[in-house]
Amino acid sequence: MSKRIEHDFLGEKEIPQDVYYGIQTLRALENFHITGIPLKVEPLFVKSLGYVKKAAAMANRDLGVLDKNIAEYIIRASDRVINGEFDNQFLSDLIQGGAGTSVNMNANEVIANVALEMMGKQKGEYEFCHPNNHVNCSQSTNDAYPTAFRIALILKLTAYKEELGKLADAFDTKGKEFQNVLKMGRTQLQDAVPMSLGDEFHAFAINLREELSRVDSSRRLIAEINMGATAIGTRVNAPEGYAELVTQYLCEVTGLDLKLAENLIEATNDTGAYVQLSGVLKRTAVKVSKICNDLRLLSSGPRAGLNEINLPPMQPGSSIMPGKVNPVIPEVVNQTAYYVIGADLTVTMAAEAGQLQLNVMEPVISFALFTAITYMGNACRTLREKCILGITANAEHTKQMVMNSIGIVTQLNPILGYEQSAGIAREALETGKSVHDIAVKEKKLITQEKWDEIFTFDNMIRPQFINR
Amino acid sequence: MSKRIEHDFLGEKEIPQDVYYGIQTLRALENFHITGIPLKVEPLFVKSLGYVKKAAAMANRDLGVLDKNIAEYIIRASDRVINGEFDNQFLSDLIQGGAGTSVNMNANEVIANVALEMMGKQKGEYEFCHPNNHVNCSQSTNDAYPTAFRIALILKLTAYKEELGKLADAFDTKGKEFQNVLKMGRTQLQDAVPMSLGDEFHAFAINLREELSRVDSSRRLIAEINMGATAIGTRVNAPEGYAELVTQYLCEVTGLDLKLAENLIEATNDTGAYVQLSGVLKRTAVKVSKICNDLRLLSSGPRAGLNEINLPPMQPGSSIMPGKVNPVIPEVVNQTAYYVIGADLTVTMAAEAGQLQLNVMEPVISFALFTAITYMGNACRTLREKCILGITANAEHTKQMVMNSIGIVTQLNPILGYEQSAGIAREALETGKSVHDIAVKEKKLITQEKWDEIFTFDNMIRPQFINR
Amino acid sequence: MSKRIEHDFLGEKEIPQDVYYGIQTLRALENFHITGIPLKVEPLFVKSLGYVKKAAAMANRDLGVLDKNIAEYIIRASDRVINGEFDNQFLSDLIQGGAGTSVNMNANEVIANVALEMMGKQKGEYEFCHPNNHVNCSQSTNDAYPTAFRIALILKLTAYKEELGKLADAFDTKGKEFQNVLKMGRTQLQDAVPMSLGDEFHAFAINLREELSRVDSSRRLIAEINMGATAIGTRVNAPEGYAELVTQYLCEVTGLDLKLAENLIEATNDTGAYVQLSGVLKRTAVKVSKICNDLRLLSSGPRAGLNEINLPPMQPGSSIMPGKVNPVIPEVVNQTAYYVIGADLTVTMAAEAGQLQLNVMEPVISFALFTAITYMGNACRTLREKCILGITANAEHTKQMVMNSIGIVTQLNPILGYEQSAGIAREALETGKSVHDIAVKEKKLITQEKWDEIFTFDNMIRPQFINR
Amino acid sequence: MSKRIEHDFLGEKEIPQDVYYGIQTLRALENFHITGIPLKVEPLFVKSLGYVKKAAAMANRDLGVLDKNIAEYIIRASDRVINGEFDNQFLSDLIQGGAGTSVNMNANEVIANVALEMMGKQKGEYEFCHPNNHVNCSQSTNDAYPTAFRIALILKLTAYKEELGKLADAFDTKGKEFQNVLKMGRTQLQDAVPMSLGDEFHAFAINLREELSRVDSSRRLIAEINMGATAIGTRVNAPEGYAELVTQYLCEVTGLDLKLAENLIEATNDTGAYVQLSGVLKRTAVKVSKICNDLRLLSSGPRAGLNEINLPPMQPGSSIMPGKVNPVIPEVVNQTAYYVIGADLTVTMAAEAGQLQLNVMEPVISFALFTAITYMGNACRTLREKCILGITANAEHTKQMVMNSIGIVTQLNPILGYEQSAGIAREALETGKSVHDIAVKEKKLITQEKWDEIFTFDNMIRPQFINR
Repeated sequence: MSKRIEHDFLGEKEIPQDVYYGIQTLRALENFHITGIPLKVEPLFVKSLGYVKKAAAMANRDLGVLDKNIAEYIIRASDRVINGEFDNQFLSDLIQGGAGTSVNMNANEVIANVALEMMGKQKGEYEFCHPNNHVNCSQSTNDAYPTAFRIALILKLTAYKEELGKLADAFDTKGKEFQNVLKMGRTQLQDAVPMSLGDEFHAFAINLREELSRVDSSRRLIAEINMGATAIGTRVNAPEGYAELVTQYLCEVTGLDLKLAENLIEATNDTGAYVQLSGVLKRTAVKVSKICNDLRLLSSGPRAGLNEINLPPMQPGSSIMPGKVNPVIPEVVNQTAYYVIGADLTVTMAAEAGQLQLNVMEPVISFALFTAITYMGNACRTLREKCILGITANAEHTKQMVMNSIGIVTQLNPILGYEQSAGIAREALETGKSVHDIAVKEKKLITQEKWDEIFTFDNMIRPQFINR
Repeated sequence: MSKRIEHDFLGEKEIPQDVYYGIQTLRALENFHITGIPLKVEPLFVKSLGYVKKAAAMANRDLGVLDKNIAEYIIRASDRVINGEFDNQFLSDLIQGGAGTSVNMNANEVIANVALEMMGKQKGEYEFCHPNNHVNCSQSTNDAYPTAFRIALILKLTAYKEELGKLADAFDTKGKEFQNVLKMGRTQLQDAVPMSLGDEFHAFAINLREELSRVDSSRRLIAEINMGATAIGTRVNAPEGYAELVTQYLCEVTGLDLKLAENLIEATNDTGAYVQLSGVLKRTAVKVSKICNDLRLLSSGPRAGLNEINLPPMQPGSSIMPGKVNPVIPEVVNQTAYYVIGADLTVTMAAEAGQLQLNVMEPVISFALFTAITYMGNACRTLREKCILGITANAEHTKQMVMNSIGIVTQLNPILGYEQSAGIAREALETGKSVHDIAVKEKKLITQEKWDEIFTFDNMIRPQFINR
Repeated sequence: MSKRIEHDFLGEKEIPQDVYYGIQTLRALENFHITGIPLKVEPLFVKSLGYVKKAAAMANRDLGVLDKNIAEYIIRASDRVINGEFDNQFLSDLIQGGAGTSVNMNANEVIANVALEMMGKQKGEYEFCHPNNHVNCSQSTNDAYPTAFRIALILKLTAYKEELGKLADAFDTKGKEFQNVLKMGRTQLQDAVPMSLGDEFHAFAINLREELSRVDSSRRLIAEINMGATAIGTRVNAPEGYAELVTQYLCEVTGLDLKLAENLIEATNDTGAYVQLSGVLKRTAVKVSKICNDLRLLSSGPRAGLNEINLPPMQPGSSIMPGKVNPVIPEVVNQTAYYVIGADLTVTMAAEAGQLQLNVMEPVISFALFTAITYMGNACRTLREKCILGITANAEHTKQMVMNSIGIVTQLNPILGYEQSAGIAREALETGKSVHDIAVKEKKLITQEKWDEIFTFDNMIRPQFINR
Repeated sequence: MSKRIEHDFLGEKEIPQDVYYGIQTLRALENFHITGIPLKVEPLFVKSLGYVKKAAAMANRDLGVLDKNIAEYIIRASDRVINGEFDNQFLSDLIQGGAGTSVNMNANEVIANVALEMMGKQKGEYEFCHPNNHVNCSQSTNDAYPTAFRIALILKLTAYKEELGKLADAFDTKGKEFQNVLKMGRTQLQDAVPMSLGDEFHAFAINLREELSRVDSSRRLIAEINMGATAIGTRVNAPEGYAELVTQYLCEVTGLDLKLAENLIEATNDTGAYVQLSGVLKRTAVKVSKICNDLRLLSSGPRAGLNEINLPPMQPGSSIMPGKVNPVIPEVVNQTAYYVIGADLTVTMAAEAGQLQLNVMEPVISFALFTAITYMGNACRTLREKCILGITANAEHTKQMVMNSIGIVTQLNPILGYEQSAGIAREALETGKSVHDIAVKEKKLITQEKWDEIFTFDNMIRPQFINR
C-alpha cells in the first residue's frame, strides 16, 4: 500500500496514502486502546466538528486572518464532513487522553487533506492547507473540542427528547383506556385506598413529561459555547471580534441557538453543564426505573402475584419452565437505568478532577453522556413500542380485590372517626370478614343506604367528600 | 414520675405525663435506633410541621369540617410549635420507617396536647382534641409530611444560597485585587499561556455564581406541594376546595410562594424534585471541590511547589514537622464535597426505590438533603471567612515563572506559524534556553522590537491579536 | 473563668484553665464547623488514641529517647484516656482539614496536661511534659492518626460482626420454623416452581453469614499499621527498632493482632484497606436491602398483596387509614442501606483524592466508616429484634397459591417434554383452568396415579427427580 | 434467502436458513436494542457457554437422562462453540431483559442446530436434538447462565491479573532505577521531608501488587457455581447426583477449580460475588487513578511546575500551543478509572434490585463487569508500555529543591526540639533564608560538624536516627 511521510515535532511517521487523517491522529490510534469503540459511532459528533471548522473558516476569512481561497476549500471540505462522507476517518478511541486534542486534530487533518484533494494537491502537502495553521486557525482544542461536543449533545438531545415525549404519550393513552378500571392503591406495599388504574398510568405520563422541561433546561446550559477562547480562554491568537463572529456563523450553519459564554476563562474550565445534564439523565433514569418496577409488580403472577395488568408477551421466559413469560422489556429498561446512574458517577468524578484552566477528563465525560443519551433513548422507544402500548388490564380481578379489601374502611373515617374505623379494620383482619359485614350487618354503625351512598363505583374510583 | 395511659389499635402504653407527644411517637422512639440523631436538630422542619398543621386547621375551619373552637386551639398550639417552644418534643430518629408517619403523628400528638392544655384539659384527653380526627383532619402523612419537608428545604435553601453568594463575592473581591498579577496558565498541569491571577479568581466567582440560579430552579420544583392529596393523592376524606384553600393559607403563614401540584396522585409518589435538588447540591460540591483542589495546588510549596498564592495559616500543620502549615480549610471543604456527593447517591437510591403510590424512603432523603445543605453552607462560610479573604499572591514569583516559560511561544504562532514555533519550544526544552534567546538572538526570527511589542505586560496578561 | 496562655508558632491564645486540651485543639475548634458532631461521639476512637500514645511512650522509654519518669506519667495519663475519663475533651468536628493533625494534637495536649496534673504541675507547663516533644515523641500524625483509626475500626467491627451474626441466626431460626410451609417460588416476579418458605429464610441466613468472613478479611487488612513511619514513612526521627517495638506494645495493650506494614512509605499513603472495608459494608448493605425488599413483598397485602408472611406490627401505619400497618422495620433498614452505599462513594472519592505521600482526606473516610458501621450494626439489631423473630407464615394461603398455580407444570417437563408442557401452561393461562384438569382429565396426558406420585407435598416442597 | 419456520409457544417465525440460532434468539434480537453491542464481543463468554453445555451433556449422558447418541453430538457441537467457530451466531444485545434466558437459549439453539447438521439433519429438525429438551437438559437459565458468566469472568481475570502484575513490576523497575534520586516528600501538597524517588515508585509497585491477592479472593468467590440448581435452586427436574457430576465435568473441561455452592437456593439469587469483584476492580481503579494523579503532578511543568520526572512524550499536546506535550497516558488511565467506578455503581444498583429467588439484572452486571475488566486491563498495559517504562528523573533539580527547602528542619527536631525548630522554619519562610544559614551561621544552634553529620546524602534519602 502506498504511504506518505508526515512529521510533527516528535518525529516522522508513515501514513497510508488513502487515509485522510494524519500523523497526530495516527499517534492517537497507537496510544489509546481502552474501549475499542471508535469516534465514528457518534456521527453527530463528527458532524459537529465539521460545523465548528466551517464556522471558524468563515469567521477567519471575514476577519482577514485566513486566505480567502484556503478558507473556501476548508468550508467545502467541512461540508463533506458534515454530510457524513468521512465518518470512517474518525477512529480515535472514545476514551482518550489529551483533553480532546486527538479528536480536534483528527478533524483538522481530515479536513486539511480533503481540502487539499479538492484543490488538486496531494494529501499531506500541508503548505497549501495546514491542519494547525489553517484549519485550526484562531482555535484551540480548548474551545473547538467542547464546542463540537456541545453541538453534538444538543443534536442528540433533540432525538432523545422526542422518544421521551412519545413514551409519556403512550402512558397517557393507556391512562385514558384504563380510566374506569377500579383498583386498590397501595402505599408501602400495603393496601391503602381504591383508585383508578387510569390515574395510575396518567401519573406515569405526568411524571415523565416533567422531564421534558428538564431536558430543555440542560440544553440551554449546553448551548453556551466558548469559541474564540483559544488557549485557556485568554483569546490569545484570535483576532478582535472573532469569538462573536464565529458564534454567529455557528448558529447559522447549525440552525441552533448557541450563545457565547460571558467569561471565556471560566467557560473553558467549567464542566458544570455536563454535570447538570448528566443529573437530568439520571433523574429520568430513576423515574423510568421506578415505573418499570411498578409495571413488573402490577403484572406479577399470573396466579401467585398481583396480576392487575398484563404486559404483552415478548418471548418465552424460561428454558425450563414451560409457559412462563417474563416482563423482559421493563427489565431491560431497569438495567439501562442502572447504566445511566453509573455513567452519572463517571461524569461526576471526571468533572471533579478538572484542574486549573481546563478539565482534561472531557473525553470520558463525552463517552458517558453519549452512551447515556443513546441508551436511554433506546430504552424509552423499546418500552413504548414493545410494552406500554400493548398492556391490558384485568379489571374484574382488580375490582374484586378492592371490594374484598380492608382499606376501604378509610372512607368511613369522616363518619365513624379514626378509632372506630380502626376497630373495624382490626376485626376484619383478625376474622377474615368484610368491612361491610362488620360495619353494616354486625355492628350496625352505618345503614345500608349510607354504605351504598359512599361505596358507589364513582366514589370509589374518584372519591367525593361525604360528611356524616 | 407521673404517667398517663394512651392507646392505639395495637394496644396501650404508659407515657410520662410531662411529655407532649403521645403513644405513636413513643412507639417510633422504641422502634427506630439508627443514627441517634433526633428530629429536633432540624428546627426548621419542626417549624414547617407547625405551619402545615396551622394552615390545615384554618382551611378545615373555613370549610366546616372542624369545630371552630377546636380549630382555634390547634392554630394557637401550632403557633407555639412554629415559634420553637416544643422543639424538644420532636425526637424521632432522622432515619425511620413508615414514610414519615411517625413524624406527622409526632406533630399531631404534640399539637393536640398543647391545645388540650391551653383548653384547660389534661394531656391525653383526646376526645376534646384528637391527634388524628382533629389535628390531622383532611390530611394524610402522604401529604402533610412531604409538604412540611419541602417548606423546611426552602427555608434551609434561603440561608444556604446566601452563603454561596457570599463565597462567590469573596472570589470576586480577590479577583479584583489580583487583576495585575501575571501568572502562567496551565492545562493538563503543563505550562500553557500567561494569564492574570485575577482572572483565575474571577472565574471561580462566576463558576459559583452560576449555582445561585440552579438553587432557584430547585426551589421552584420544591415549592410544588400536594396538600389535600390525602391518601395516595385521591383527595379521599378531604372536603371540596380544601386542597386549594390550605395551599393558600400555607402561602400566607409561611410567606412562601408555594404551588399546589396539578396532579396529586403523581405528586404524592414523585420524588423528582428531591433528586433534582440533590443533583444541584452535588454540582456545587463538584465545583467547590475543584476550586479547593486548585487552591491547594496553587499554594503548594513553599519551596518545592508552585507557590503562587499564600493561604492564611490557620493552625500548625504537623505534630512532627516544625513550621509546616497546611491548607486545612480547602481540605475540609473537599471532604464536605465528598460527603455531599455520597449523599446524592443515597437520595438516588431512595428515589429509585419508591413503589406504586408512595415513596416510603422519604425519611432518608430528608436526612441526606438536610445534612448536605447544612454541611455545604457551613463549608462555604468556612472557606470564605477562613481562607479566601486572607489569600495573598506571590506576584514576583509568578511573573518570573512566566518569563522563564516556554509557553509564551504560543504568542509567536500567528507570526511564525505552528511548526517553527514548535521548533523553538523543542530547543528551549532540550537546552534550557529561553524562548527570547532562541527566537530573537540566535535564530533572529523576529526582531527585538516586534518581541517587545508582543511581550508587553499588558499583552501577556490580556493578549491582543498581533498579526505578522 | 480562669484562663491560661498557650502559644504555638502562629501566636498565642487564651485557654480556659479547666480544659485539658491546648492551643492546637482550640484552633481546630475555631476552624472546623461542618457537621457539628464532635469526636467524642466515637469513644472507641478516643480510646484508641490513648492506646497509641501509651504504646509509643513505652517504646520510647525502652529505647532511651524519652525520660523514664515522663514516660511513666504519659502512660498513666493515657490509661485514663483509654478508660474514657476524658472523652469530653475530644471535641474536633468529625470532618476536619489537616489529615488528622488536630485529632492527634488533641490527644497529645490532653495527655500532656493530664500527665502534668498528675505530676503536680499546672496545665500548660509543657517544659515538664510537652505535647509534641514528649507525648508525640517518635510519632507523626502520619502514623499515629491512622493507627488509632484502624484500632478503633477493629473494635467497632467486633461489635458489628456480632450483630450481623445474630441476624443470620434469626433467619436460620425462622428457616427451621417454616421448613414445611409450601409456597410458590418466583423469578422475575412471575410464578416459577414450588419451594419451602423455610428454604427461602434459610437462604437469607446463608446470604448474610457469608458476610462474616468478608468482615474478617477486612479486619486483616485494617490490622496492618504504620507506627514508626513518622513523616511520610521515612522513619525520620524515630530511633532504630522503634517501629517494631511500638507495634509489639500496641498488640499487648490492645489485645489485638496488629501487624507492622512491610513498607512504611506505601502504608502511609495507602487507603486501600478503607476502600476494601467500605466495599464490604456496601456489599452487606446491598444484601440486607434486597432481603428487606423481599420481606416487604412477601408481607404485602393484607388482601391485595402476596400475603405470604406477617411481620410483627410495630406501630399504626397511617394517620388517615385506620388499621393500616406497615413494614416499618424493613423500611428503616432499606434506608440505612442507602446511607451506607452513599458513604461508600464518599470513601471512594476521598481515597482517590490522595496525593503523593499522604491521603489528607482520611477524616471524612473515618466519618463515613464510623457512621456506616454504627448504622449498619443498629439496623441489623433492629431488624432481628423488631421484625425477623416475630414473623409468622400464612401456610394455608401459600399452599393454595401453589396448587392453583400454572408453575407446577414444570414438574411435568421430564415426562411430557417442554413443548407439550408449554401447551398446557398456555391453555391454563387462557382458560383459567388448573394444570391438573387439563393434563389429567381433559387431555389425559398422564394418569392420576402418576400425578399423585409427582405432586406429593414432599415432592413439591423438595423435588425429587421422577422420570417418565 | 432460504428460510425455515420455527415456533415456540408464542407463535411462529421465519428464520434465515443459514443461521444457527433459532426463534428464541430471533425474538431477543427483535426485542433488545439498547447498546448495539452484541454478545460476540465477549468470545470468552461464548466459550464458557460451550463449556457449560458440554459438561451438562456429559453428566446427563452418564446419568441416563439423555440419549447417548444425542449427547455425543451435543458434546461435539459444544466443542466447536468452545473453539470459537460460531461466535458470530451470538448476537443478543449485551443489556437484555429476561435474566439471561436469551443468552442461554442462544447457546441451546446454536448447539442444537450445529449438532443437527453434524447428524446430517436440517437445522430446525428439533425432534432429533431439541434446544430445551436435549441441549438444556437438567438445566435452567437460573444455573446455566450464571455458571457460564462466572467461568467467563475467571478467564478474563486471568489475563487482567497478568497485566496488573506487569504494571507493578514496571514500577519496581523504575523504583530501582531511581533509588538514589533525592527529592522532597510532600504531604497535603506542602513540602514535608526528603525521600528517595525510587522509594516513591517502589511504593506504587507495592500498592498495586496488593491488588493481585484481592483479585485472587474474588476469583475464589466467583468460582462457586450453582449448576444443578435448575429453577430457583430446587434441583427440580435434575437427576440425583447431577449437580455434583456436572460440576466435576466442568472442572475437567475448563481446567478451573470450580466448586458447587453449598446451598443452591441461596446461590441462585445471590449476586454477592459480583459485588465483591466489582469492589475489587473499583479499589484498583482508585489506586491507579491516584498514582496517575501523582505522575501528572510530578511531571508538571516543564518550567512552572514540579518537573521532577519526565513522562515519555507520546503526541503533540496542543493544536495551538507549539511544543506542548501532555501526560496523555496517565490521563486516559484516570478516565478509565472513572468508568470503572461508575460501573461499580451500576453493579451495586443491579445487585440491590434482585427480588426473591433470582436477580433478573444479571445481564447489566455482566456488561459492567466485562467492560470494567477489559478497560482496566487495557489501561494497565497502556500505562506500563507507553508511560512508566519510559519515565526519566530530573535528579539535579529534585536535589536542589530539597536543599533549598525548609522541610529539612524536621531533621533538627530531636536535637533542637519542636518549638525551636519551628522558629527556624518561621524565619526561613519570612526571610527567604536557608535553614542552614539560620541554624548554623546566624543562631549557631548547631555546629557545622553536626549539620554535616545529619545532612549527608544518605541520611537525607534514608534517614537514620541521630540523637542530640
